[in-house]
Amino acid sequence: VSRADRQGAALELALAAGAEVLVCADPANVHWLTGLVVEIETGPNPFAAAPAVLIAAGEPARLLAAEEDLPEDLEVRVEPLAYTGFSTGPLSGIGRARELAAGVIGGRRAAVDSAAARALVTAGTKPADVAAALVEARAVKDSEELEAIRKAIAVTDVGQERARAAVAEGGDELEVLAAARAAMEATAGERLPLGADLVSGPRAAAMGGGPSAHRPAPGELVLCDLAPRVAGTWGDSCATFAVGDPPAAARAAHGRVREALERAIEAVRPGAVAGAIDALTRDGLDYSHHTGHGIGSSFYESPRLVPGADTTLREGMVIALEPAYYDAGFGLRLEHVVRVTADGCEDLSTHRLELE
Amino acid sequence: VSRADRQGAALELALAAGAEVLVCADPANVHWLTGLVVEIETGPNPFAAAPAVLIAAGEPARLLAAEEDLPEDLEVRVEPLAYTGFSTGPLSGIGRARELAAGVIGGRRAAVDSAAARALVTAGTKPADVAAALVEARAVKDSEELEAIRKAIAVTDVGQERARAAVAEGGDELEVLAAARAAMEATAGERLPLGADLVSGPRAAAMGGGPSAHRPAPGELVLCDLAPRVAGTWGDSCATFAVGDPPAAARAAHGRVREALERAIEAVRPGAVAGAIDALTRDGLDYSHHTGHGIGSSFYESPRLVPGADTTLREGMVIALEPAYYDAGFGLRLEHVVRVTADGCEDLSTHRLELE
Repeated sequence: VSRADRQGAALELALAAGAEVLVCADPANVHWLTGLVVEIETGPNPFAAAPAVLIAAGEPARLLAAEEDLPEDLEVRVEPLAYTGFSTGPLSGIGRARELAAGVIGGRRAAVDSAAARALVTAGTKPADVAAALVEARAVKDSEELEAIRKAIAVTDVGQERARAAVAEGGDELEVLAAARAAMEATAGERLPLGADLVSGPRAAAMGGGPSAHRPAPGELVLCDLAPRVAGTWGDSCATFAVGDPPAAARAAHGRVREALERAIEAVRPGAVAGAIDALTRDGLDYSHHTGHGIGSSFYESPRLVPGADTTLREGMVIALEPAYYDAGFGLRLEHVVRVTADGCEDLSTHRLELE
Repeated sequence: VSRADRQGAALELALAAGAEVLVCADPANVHWLTGLVVEIETGPNPFAAAPAVLIAAGEPARLLAAEEDLPEDLEVRVEPLAYTGFSTGPLSGIGRARELAAGVIGGRRAAVDSAAARALVTAGTKPADVAAALVEARAVKDSEELEAIRKAIAVTDVGQERARAAVAEGGDELEVLAAARAAMEATAGERLPLGADLVSGPRAAAMGGGPSAHRPAPGELVLCDLAPRVAGTWGDSCATFAVGDPPAAARAAHGRVREALERAIEAVRPGAVAGAIDALTRDGLDYSHHTGHGIGSSFYESPRLVPGADTTLREGMVIALEPAYYDAGFGLRLEHVVRVTADGCEDLSTHRLELE
C-alpha cells in the first residue's frame, strides 16, 4: 500500500458520503496520507492553520501548510500549497490558509475529518463528516506502518524498563516519568510527544493521571502507562511496579490481570469479535475502560475492544491490550501491543510485566 | 479585574463585530476567560471537542466540555455544559458538543476565536472572527495574571540554570533539555507542556529547533530557549552557553546581543512604540524574527516588537525581549521577560545571560 493508495481509499470515503473534495486536518490522517509529522505539543499553532490534505478526483493531492511546517525532504505524493505563517509582518496565516482552501474546494461539497478541517470549509453546503470512516480505513496496517509501530513499541519498552529502574532507585513520580522520557528520547534521537499516566498509591485507583512530587511509599503500586509518538506513529504500554512488599490483595489482583492479558493474547486472531475478547478478558476484573484499542498514526484507533463491540478482527490490525484492576487503595494495569497475524497474534511488546 | 470582567470585555468585542454570541475555543482564551487549563500535549482530543466558552448578553457564560475535561474544583463564573467524551460506548462526543453549542447559539450570529470554535458553529451566517481582537484584549495583565507569569518565569529560571549546568557536565542536546525539563517540572510539581529550542553548533544558525543526540563540541555554542506552560500561563526564556573556549566572533556577538537586550530593557516604558524599540534593539545585529512579544495565557501575545509596529506600550504589558545574532557557524539569543511599570519596566527573569 502506497501513500497514493491511501489517498485514493480516503477519497472513496468522501465520495461515498456525497462529497467531491476531502479535507483532512486531523494530525493522524495527515500523517497517514502524506507522512507529514504535525507538531502538536504546544497546542494549536497561533500563526497558521493546522496542516491539511485536500484530495479530489483527477487532481493532485494538496498539502496546505505554512512554510515552516513543510519539511524540505517531504517524500510524499502531494503538491505543497504553502503560505507564510510566522513572520515579522502581519500574522495572516490562518486567513490565508482559508483562502487557499477555498480556491481548491471551489463550490464543491467537502467531506471533513476534524474541527480544523471543518474550519477550512467556509462556504457552500454543510460538510460531510468522514472522521469515523477514516479511523476504520486506518485499522489494518501495511508493512510500512507495522515497521513504524515496531519502532515506537521498542521505544516504549526502553521507557518501561527505565521507569521500573527509577522506581527501584526511589524516585518520586515526576522523577520516574522524567527518567523514562529521557531514555525514550535518547533511543529515538529526538523529543517525543508523550501521553502518560504515572500515578502511585491510592491516586492510581482513578485509572491514571499525571505525575506529582509524591514519592511512592513501601507497599504502594506505581502505575506507568507510556504512549510516545515516534516519527508520527504512536506506541503504547503499561506496567505496574510494586515498591517494597506489595499487599496480598495487590499481588492477587496482579495475578488476575496478568492472566487476563494472557487470555486476550490467546484469543486475538482473524475472525474473532472485539466484544467477545473484551468479555473474556474482563471476566473477574474491575475496570470501566476498554480492554483494548488500535494504535498507529493516532493513539486510539479501531478496533475498539469494548463491551458489545461487533468489529471482526482482521490480519494486520495492531491492538493495545490493557486489562486492569482498580481498588480503593491501588490501581493496576498491564498493557502489551499485539499484531493480528494469519492465525493468531504476535506480541510486539517486550517490556516486563512483573509486579516486582 | 475578575473573570466576569474579562468575559464582559470579550463579549463587547463580539458585539462590536456584529455578533450576538461569542464562542471561544482557543486554549489561551478559554484559560483567560475561565481559568480552565486545557490539555494540549498530545494533540486534538479524539473523543471530544476542544473545551469552549460561550457567552451572550444576559445569559450565564457556559463552559462546553467533556466531563473528563472539567475539574471538580473549577472556580470560575461559568455554567458547565458537560457531555460524555471518552467511554466504552459509542464515541459521539464531538457530535454531542456541536449539538449543545447549537442549542446555545440558536439562530444568532456567532463570533469565533479559532478553528475549534468555528467548527462548533454549524449553521447560520458566517461567523465573525475576533481572534486578533482577543489577543489585544489580553495584552495588559492584571495582578492575578502577573502573579501567574512570575511563577512561570521562576520556573524558566530554574530550567536555564539546570541547562547551563548540564552543558557544563558534558550532556548532549537531548540530555540537556531532559535535565532542564525535569528541574522545571520538579519546581512546578507537575508535568509541563514545553516549547523549546535546544540546538548547538552550526545547526543553531537556523534560529532554533529540537534537541538531537549531538554532543556539543568545544568551541560550540548551545542555544537554549525554554517556554513551559505553568498552570495555564506560559513562561519564556533564552540563554546561550559556550562549551569550552568560544571563538572570538561568538564572544563579540554575545557582547552585542547582551548590549541590545540592555538597550531594549532601558527603552521599554509606557508610551514607547513597539516598532521603535524593535529598531533600536536590532541595530547592528542580524536576526529575521521579532525582537519581542507578549506572553500570558498563550506563548505569543501582543505587543509584538517587530519592524514598523505602531503599538504603544502600556503599563501592565509583559514582554519577552529576545535579540539574537545568527552566523554561519553559530546561533546566539538572549531573552528576559519584562513587565511594563508606570515609568519603565521590571525585569522578571533572573537567569544568567553569560556565555561562560
